[in-house]
Amino acid sequence: MSSRKRRSYEAENELANILWSLGFAVVRGPASGSGVRRRFQPDLVAAKNGKILVFEIKRCSRDETALYIESSQVLGLQEWAKRAGGEAFIAIRLPGGEWRIHDVGDLEITKGGNFKLKDLKKGVRLRDLLERIEPKSKSLTEFLESYDSSEHHA
Amino acid sequence: MSSRKRRSYEAENELANILWSLGFAVVRGPASGSGVRRRFQPDLVAAKNGKILVFEIKRCSRDETALYIESSQVLGLQEWAKRAGGEAFIAIRLPGGEWRIHDVGDLEITKGGNFKLKDLKKGVRLRDLLERIEPKSKSLTEFLESYDSSEHHA
Repeated sequence: MSSRKRRSYEAENELANILWSLGFAVVRGPASGSGVRRRFQPDLVAAKNGKILVFEIKRCSRDETALYIESSQVLGLQEWAKRAGGEAFIAIRLPGGEWRIHDVGDLEITKGGNFKLKDLKKGVRLRDLLERIEPKSKSLTEFLESYDSSEHHA
Repeated sequence: MSSRKRRSYEAENELANILWSLGFAVVRGPASGSGVRRRFQPDLVAAKNGKILVFEIKRCSRDETALYIESSQVLGLQEWAKRAGGEAFIAIRLPGGEWRIHDVGDLEITKGGNFKLKDLKKGVRLRDLLERIEPKSKSLTEFLESYDSSEHHA
């Protein structure tokens, strides 16, 4: 496995473990390039009490201020969410380990027909995303506050 | 990839393609043995309009009359479905290509504490499963009837 692939795998696995520990059912998709052309393969799917979230996962380095994503990935993600009756997100792992979750609708279309995500830090934190999904879940909020504080120490 | 793994991969992929062509959002889990211990990794998850199905997939040979499944797999599958608010199934690919879908509740517990599935052909056909999920979906039923007839020709 290349270093880049391994780091990408580690980020997916980290988010999967956080969501699993929060009570979500989680499944990571198979590694990209596994030869499937007919279906879109998401990076990560999480579900809880009938709510379905599908994620494209990216990590960014210190000098990146924007991310570019191929249109086929974004459109595939949206199609997947529509079929499932769920919501589609781009999850960004910032340097240091904080996560920011961007709604697919926040992407801009580039002149080349692909998608661009600016303001990587502007996405919501995990706890805010989950608060939106499960309002007033006290213990969940407490749990995520402990996650967020550990992020600040990273 | 060993021949056994490849055949298992092909069966998972086949069911994934059928469900995708029926309008489901589908994600196959990563290959087993990908080093994740903390979470249960299902073979296949399919979702449509907020309904979530999770599958353990097996193929059986002509001389098999029962299948044995490790308790960790069955309990993991049930836990996954419970978290997601979905339903858990064992999907069996019979020799010749027909599929039979068994409810996890149909499994028997063996003396060794694992699970046994008898009467492999007794599970429901895909069309009956989907009819249960989406009653009165005319076009779906027609589509699956064409699948079932192609199965008979296999």
